[in-house]
Amino acid sequence: MSLVIVGTVAFDAIETPFGKTDKIVGGAATFSGLSATYLYDDVKLVSVVGEDFGDNLNIITAKGIDVDGIEIVEGGKTFFWSGKYHNDLNSRDTLSTDLNVLADFDPKIPKSYQDCEYLLLGNLTPQIQIATLERLQNKPKLVVLDTMNYWMNVALDDLKKVLQRVDVLTINDEEARQLSGEYSLVKASEKILAMGPKYLIIKKGEHGALLFGEGQIFSAPALPLADVFDPTGAGDTFAGGFIGYMAKVKSINFNNMKNAIIYGSAMASFCVERFGTERMLDLTQDEITVRLQQFVALSKFDIAE
Amino acid sequence: MSLVIVGTVAFDAIETPFGKTDKIVGGAATFSGLSATYLYDDVKLVSVVGEDFGDNLNIITAKGIDVDGIEIVEGGKTFFWSGKYHNDLNSRDTLSTDLNVLADFDPKIPKSYQDCEYLLLGNLTPQIQIATLERLQNKPKLVVLDTMNYWMNVALDDLKKVLQRVDVLTINDEEARQLSGEYSLVKASEKILAMGPKYLIIKKGEHGALLFGEGQIFSAPALPLADVFDPTGAGDTFAGGFIGYMAKVKSINFNNMKNAIIYGSAMASFCVERFGTERMLDLTQDEITVRLQQFVALSKFDIAE
Repeated sequence: MSLVIVGTVAFDAIETPFGKTDKIVGGAATFSGLSATYLYDDVKLVSVVGEDFGDNLNIITAKGIDVDGIEIVEGGKTFFWSGKYHNDLNSRDTLSTDLNVLADFDPKIPKSYQDCEYLLLGNLTPQIQIATLERLQNKPKLVVLDTMNYWMNVALDDLKKVLQRVDVLTINDEEARQLSGEYSLVKASEKILAMGPKYLIIKKGEHGALLFGEGQIFSAPALPLADVFDPTGAGDTFAGGFIGYMAKVKSINFNNMKNAIIYGSAMASFCVERFGTERMLDLTQDEITVRLQQFVALSKFDIAE
Repeated sequence: MSLVIVGTVAFDAIETPFGKTDKIVGGAATFSGLSATYLYDDVKLVSVVGEDFGDNLNIITAKGIDVDGIEIVEGGKTFFWSGKYHNDLNSRDTLSTDLNVLADFDPKIPKSYQDCEYLLLGNLTPQIQIATLERLQNKPKLVVLDTMNYWMNVALDDLKKVLQRVDVLTINDEEARQLSGEYSLVKASEKILAMGPKYLIIKKGEHGALLFGEGQIFSAPALPLADVFDPTGAGDTFAGGFIGYMAKVKSINFNNMKNAIIYGSAMASFCVERFGTERMLDLTQDEITVRLQQFVALSKFDIAE
């Protein structure tokens, strides 16, 4: 039974106060997929790249990820993003966004992907997200949706249709306020859960994340870091770790999702230690275990239940 | 052995999206003192009010707080602050600040206060904070300092002298960045702890708080609230709950401080439910116990240590 991730596979060129890269492999599906492999062994990607992507697919397949669902457009160019982070690494300027083959992306679901039980719909047009759901013969056990303010601005009706068909929505706090029209995140969560998802994850970057669902709230800390080298892909790495953990434990409930958020946060904390996907290629299970312990130590206190 | 709190006792006039008050009793020492009484029974205030404060002192003494250290200036007027909160209740405009008797405040320490073991130096000029320390014959077991960006701008040298003489500093994240010149809160904490305090609490409002010290970090959640009625005094209520808990448990260490932060956060979550000090006057221990359980539920997850 597989975990399918739909999203971008891209080239990124990144500048941070610590240095600068040429075109390196990026994209939401790449980050999410790499992250998920540390938790689950049947990870499959759906995406599109240009012919120029070439051997770069090896970075992904080397971690055992199935790329049969990645369309390679002959003569096409891969989606390219370049950006420059400010000194605080908390904000950035996009220098260029060349959609290239992504402009006409129509997700292909190989027959071998029809065993999908866990589906991560990465941040893409709501139309692509709906098309994916319609091309899967069976409704997956868990559908996680990532989206952003841009789609709320230009495709809200379609986004609302997707929301009716997903189990978990992940957005940031500003997006939760925009989508709901409520400043209080408690009130925002009530309105958003009424739109369809059973669970809502509000990502707050350096302030951690909140999980709402089953009438409960969970507040996950972020690990305070001395150095953030490159934040690119941290949110996608979080989502990949989250759904990877859910696929691993199989049982869909609030308690497991709390742990899944901690696993996702731990994976994201590695991602930012190096440029692009670099750190996500050579993690060991021991490193992950130590990092998880840091999250336990960070948030534990001794008031009796 | 007493808990002494030095700070403002004031009149506030507050406007929020939910309503508006005439002059009501406020001030940092008032909020901190009321909060501390729920955890410790020997709480003493040092402050100054004008003759116009009159019977309002009864609000404070009714909770068993010692007010011998509150100077009443004959013919003087009490410090007055008025402000209007924006719709998000996260920002506000100060409409007026009339220092009145606070302009010449010189803290008087009654002889009966010389048993002070726990000292909270509320947000005031560093000169007043130093004068208080010098007028105590014995160094208290625990000195907690609250300050703000204003004193970093206009009295940094004096502030640095106070920092050398305190155990715990509480400031917000922007102030920690300003004081240290570091964006990363981990690096900021290292620089600030090198200035004198053994522990640093970084208050992040709706994002909770961080505690640094003994080479450890603790991340405390804030309780997500559907309605914040009036945020005035929340930070002071937090500080009062924090030091009240420390006075109660007596042993100064990182683990106790983690709990103290949760107690402080719980007290602050009550404070914002009504205008001014209203909610802090009629809390029950049962209500506090239930609220503490909400903090446990909010942050607990099941990854083994």
